[in-house]
Amino acid sequence: MKKVGVAILGLGVVGGGTYNILVDNKEYFKKTQDVDFTVECVLEKNVQRAIDLGLEESQVAKSIEEVVSNPNVDIVVEVIGGVEPAKTFVLKALKSGKTVVTSNKELFAKHWPELETEAKNNKAGLFFEASCVGGVPIIRTLIDGMQANNIQSIKGIINGTTNYILTKMANEGSSYEEALKEAQRLGYAEFNPTADVEGFDATYKLSILSSLAFNKKICIENVYREGITGVTKEDIAYGKELGYTLKLLGIGKNTKHGIEVRVHPTFVANSNPLASVNDSFNAVHLVGDSVGEIMLYGRGAGALPTGSAIVSDVIYAAKHEDFFYTSFDNSPNGNKQTKFVNDFTSKYFIRLSVADEPGVLSTFSGVFSKCNISISEVKQTACENGKATVIIITHESSESNVNKALAKFKSLKVINKVESVIRVED
Amino acid sequence: MKKVGVAILGLGVVGGGTYNILVDNKEYFKKTQDVDFTVECVLEKNVQRAIDLGLEESQVAKSIEEVVSNPNVDIVVEVIGGVEPAKTFVLKALKSGKTVVTSNKELFAKHWPELETEAKNNKAGLFFEASCVGGVPIIRTLIDGMQANNIQSIKGIINGTTNYILTKMANEGSSYEEALKEAQRLGYAEFNPTADVEGFDATYKLSILSSLAFNKKICIENVYREGITGVTKEDIAYGKELGYTLKLLGIGKNTKHGIEVRVHPTFVANSNPLASVNDSFNAVHLVGDSVGEIMLYGRGAGALPTGSAIVSDVIYAAKHEDFFYTSFDNSPNGNKQTKFVNDFTSKYFIRLSVADEPGVLSTFSGVFSKCNISISEVKQTACENGKATVIIITHESSESNVNKALAKFKSLKVINKVESVIRVED
Repeated sequence: MKKVGVAILGLGVVGGGTYNILVDNKEYFKKTQDVDFTVECVLEKNVQRAIDLGLEESQVAKSIEEVVSNPNVDIVVEVIGGVEPAKTFVLKALKSGKTVVTSNKELFAKHWPELETEAKNNKAGLFFEASCVGGVPIIRTLIDGMQANNIQSIKGIINGTTNYILTKMANEGSSYEEALKEAQRLGYAEFNPTADVEGFDATYKLSILSSLAFNKKICIENVYREGITGVTKEDIAYGKELGYTLKLLGIGKNTKHGIEVRVHPTFVANSNPLASVNDSFNAVHLVGDSVGEIMLYGRGAGALPTGSAIVSDVIYAAKHEDFFYTSFDNSPNGNKQTKFVNDFTSKYFIRLSVADEPGVLSTFSGVFSKCNISISEVKQTACENGKATVIIITHESSESNVNKALAKFKSLKVINKVESVIRVED
Repeated sequence: MKKVGVAILGLGVVGGGTYNILVDNKEYFKKTQDVDFTVECVLEKNVQRAIDLGLEESQVAKSIEEVVSNPNVDIVVEVIGGVEPAKTFVLKALKSGKTVVTSNKELFAKHWPELETEAKNNKAGLFFEASCVGGVPIIRTLIDGMQANNIQSIKGIINGTTNYILTKMANEGSSYEEALKEAQRLGYAEFNPTADVEGFDATYKLSILSSLAFNKKICIENVYREGITGVTKEDIAYGKELGYTLKLLGIGKNTKHGIEVRVHPTFVANSNPLASVNDSFNAVHLVGDSVGEIMLYGRGAGALPTGSAIVSDVIYAAKHEDFFYTSFDNSPNGNKQTKFVNDFTSKYFIRLSVADEPGVLSTFSGVFSKCNISISEVKQTACENGKATVIIITHESSESNVNKALAKFKSLKVINKVESVIRVED
């Protein structure tokens, strides 16, 4: 039986979960995987945390050098998060020829090329299943399950915090602020929720996933990003009436004009399986030229789900000699070779506050027509105090045309305000 | 670049799809996988079919011996289906040291041990992603994505034909016979639909999937099987009123009392993501002790989806040296070591035709109580001609207790008929 030593850098939530899975399932993995895993050491400032988990004080390393010079350590698990010191630690581990398994999406989205080069140079493995969509084996699926396909699109609910908030707003009619507070109380959102609610976390994941899906270098700078802080319960309610559910989607499309990558609040048609992915669940919907539609659904975060992805990588690394490296040029130079679409097309949900006067419909529909936008659906609500709300769903239109129309609305007296503009996916 | 020769046995729907993917994506695979695939030869009686696909007549082998003795053939794809001659062909290929990729669920469910032994003895790979749930990479997920987990349950819609029929019955109020005819017209159901509608196909798949999920030998004989031929549109309509959708589920549970494996029509609560898997789509829902819930969704059949799974295996086989073999004793002897639960527990939907008399409710609820069955919900429909319909949803009850209650109903004058008994999953 193969004996494999593991070091864990960082004993936060995911580090603790990873440790527990490796220890609790030691005998199970001997039986089912023919591998005997031992957690050799950990790197963690809070020694008591390590002891509470069941480690000996002597297993708590004093420095990354102590970890990477330990000949019994074959695999280094990095679950510290953030760029530094994680990046320095990972590079040192790879330089020592240790295989690295990480859950660090920010590090990966920002510095993948450097890490991969170091891994290749030292014939070390670099595994990152846990960086995207927690326990859902989306990266394994892209690398080893859908290779036969040219992937045409990837659409995902890839951030659990925002999905929890949007589900709460939809189900309970809460405001964004109320739902955020509840998410913070339950530990789904951080005290400083920016990374989640402004879409940075989803952007990191989308850049990684779409690079793998399309075999092209896609950086976070290439991803259009819009968070959920401007979302209102009114929009969610209006969308519901029309058969749409609001989600923060990460969308990647591989079109004949180029790659399109964006993260933004999106109205998803209720017939789309993504619409019923609720609370802190995540899901990724892929379309491949051979396989057609595929969707993977599961928990995107948490000690054990993310630990499951890490240990899955640890087991894979222990059993295989041939490691995955990207087939595309993963360097900043590779990014220059990727063609992107900037003026993407989408359907739009547009909510207007209008004067309750005859001729309003013909006025704004005239503007749409001039801007080459065709309308799929219009709904006008009952008027109050001489004002009415109009909801328009457009057919596929280019972003630039929609912006032109919105600019023209500003000069129209009958349109009091463009209340909101939200993209729509069927 | 690695050059890999492929032979395809059988050019039916899936064989044709596999051929097309390998040929159409040759350049793409060179770029993304660093492998140059060539379809060296095919074994197919219908030579014209081969020529129509673009093969030379000289590439159509006259016998399996010609295929397996071809030194340029590294991987043999078997897509003939059925046990013979597929079994003989696969064994000959493995004996020659060729890696085999198959979509043949019947062969695999019935003869996996023999095939695996031959593969091991000849250090050949044996790949079978395409045998279960078409293009959905469920086997890759079980082997390489969820290894960190003790899997507790697997529940799946793993037959597209029956799901198409049941969806049609639910959406259009068709009878079983009408929906079957439409499925046959569209090519979703065979002229002789027995393998699908009687649950044999799902049983094959469930025995393979649950063996992998639970790391125990599970044979088709261990699977309780019940098809959809007795399903009525009335039951589907009554279920709908109570918030349930009828699906043919394959269910595997790893309980402390043993393994439970069964295929039968099941009312699935609409809150369960399986309830909204419609038409010919398939989905598998898994619960792992670490990862929690996961669901994979996609097309379970068809030339290109199944071809996608086959080519995914072909690429994996071309790139990896270490092949997967089961960690459990896969022999008939291994099956004796697996403990099974026979008297499984479930919630039940029971539809009774009763006399419209006072005291009916107390009569049958007395029987349930004596048989240790507690009732979750009762619904009585308006009566006609002195008869009424009563629907009962039970809490979790053992099968044997339910059978006792049903036997007692026969002697009760107020119960005219037990119209249907259908298991329920939340």
